[in-house]
Amino acid sequence: MNRQDLINLIKKKKSFLCVGLDSDINKIPAHLLDKEDPVFEFNKAIIDATLPYTVAYKPNLAFYESNGINGLVSLKKTMEYLASFKDECFTIADAKRGDIGNTSEQYAKAFLDPKGDFDFDSMTIAPYMGEDSVKPFTIYDDKWVILLALTSNKGANDFQFTEDKEGKPLFERVLTKSQEWGNIENLMFVCGATQATMFTRIRELAPENFLLVPGIGAQGGSLEEVSKYGMTKDCGMLVNSSRAIIFADKTPYFALVAAKEAKKVQEEMDKYMHLYMK
Amino acid sequence: MNRQDLINLIKKKKSFLCVGLDSDINKIPAHLLDKEDPVFEFNKAIIDATLPYTVAYKPNLAFYESNGINGLVSLKKTMEYLASFKDECFTIADAKRGDIGNTSEQYAKAFLDPKGDFDFDSMTIAPYMGEDSVKPFTIYDDKWVILLALTSNKGANDFQFTEDKEGKPLFERVLTKSQEWGNIENLMFVCGATQATMFTRIRELAPENFLLVPGIGAQGGSLEEVSKYGMTKDCGMLVNSSRAIIFADKTPYFALVAAKEAKKVQEEMDKYMHLYMK
Repeated sequence: MNRQDLINLIKKKKSFLCVGLDSDINKIPAHLLDKEDPVFEFNKAIIDATLPYTVAYKPNLAFYESNGINGLVSLKKTMEYLASFKDECFTIADAKRGDIGNTSEQYAKAFLDPKGDFDFDSMTIAPYMGEDSVKPFTIYDDKWVILLALTSNKGANDFQFTEDKEGKPLFERVLTKSQEWGNIENLMFVCGATQATMFTRIRELAPENFLLVPGIGAQGGSLEEVSKYGMTKDCGMLVNSSRAIIFADKTPYFALVAAKEAKKVQEEMDKYMHLYMK
Repeated sequence: MNRQDLINLIKKKKSFLCVGLDSDINKIPAHLLDKEDPVFEFNKAIIDATLPYTVAYKPNLAFYESNGINGLVSLKKTMEYLASFKDECFTIADAKRGDIGNTSEQYAKAFLDPKGDFDFDSMTIAPYMGEDSVKPFTIYDDKWVILLALTSNKGANDFQFTEDKEGKPLFERVLTKSQEWGNIENLMFVCGATQATMFTRIRELAPENFLLVPGIGAQGGSLEEVSKYGMTKDCGMLVNSSRAIIFADKTPYFALVAAKEAKKVQEEMDKYMHLYMK
């Protein structure tokens, strides 16, 4: 999905919600465990229920890989299901990969290649290994690399705020340097909602790039603050919520409750789009 | 495998060679493509041929994930095969993962859990997200986290050498800070052979940790230099070679040629162990 189509989708659905499919088999409703593929059945029900309010889905690979081969089969089926709604949602492989050039090419093939098992629109990448680890993810048409800049966890403080000799923190170097490797059509940044006060600075350095914003909901970030400080005239952000939506209820009505929670977030987003999209 | 067993294995085999199973299906000998699982057949033949000269095997996940589910099945079968030689080799999932705490736990489960599909001894992790992204990999008995410090690629120059206000480059911060999260029994570092002149400094900061050293062979690093500047009294390093061994020949004799190449490296290693292990 290209940038203009993503912007159009956001405007049409009045939403910039990304639902994180962190579908931990130990946390999904118990009645699904009798099914042949409980994680896929869970994802399918969540997608059906939340699609009207959601512009993106983000399976975190860790929750699939932890089930071994079976977990990857659940992911493949989920992606095949999402392919039926190709124009209705953007897809993100939350994979946080990155390796030397010839190896990153293989990761790009694994997750972005339309002929592969998964065919995501985008994937998250860690910046530590630099240019040749990132560029292979930019070569597919209408596919995106989403580079970690400022993450939502406590460990973000260990290295991301380390200032260089000019007083520039590492995450700012990542934001600026990486723009030499991609453009606003294929490069987004992960910027955690728990760092909302930093969004003004982030927008000085990356005025137009889309941001993928984790950390609202269970992690405690504020949707209004990230909208206020991070939104552009094109919206320019996808805000993720995982646990607060997909695990809002564990009864047979879990999908209805997830839809209600997603709708609540969408309505809040609609309000902020009116207030801050300019 | 614990530290003492690894040291004993190195002394017994007079080798600190790690063979990288970067088993790209497009590069393995053509005659294997008729087999049901060509990548597994290739790996099995390489393992059988190189085991006398090799103390570790390191499949790079990218080369398996790029074949989708089938690729992961090849990896699972490879790990099941390696399990028959559990005391004869250390295993490394070259995965370069890392995510927020609850998600890193899932990656650790995926690759290190003895009840999982893979049961590696160790896995490589990117440090960008800090403490809570790294610690979950240290909780399994006799299993290791191998943290990226100084990588062997050109992109290493983009962020890893960025100096902080005291003139300390980022990779040095990673080397020191991360030692608060693990110890010499469960924490190794990736330090590229293409940076051999830095090994004296690396040993000042991490005098006893094992180092995983990629970059000899196809990438051009010098085995003698890394041995001279990086070796400890316990050896303290695993030096990886991938393409130069596994793809040394593409005929039906590929495994014999791989064995010959591995033996050549092992003999060179034996010499450096006599010269520099003190």
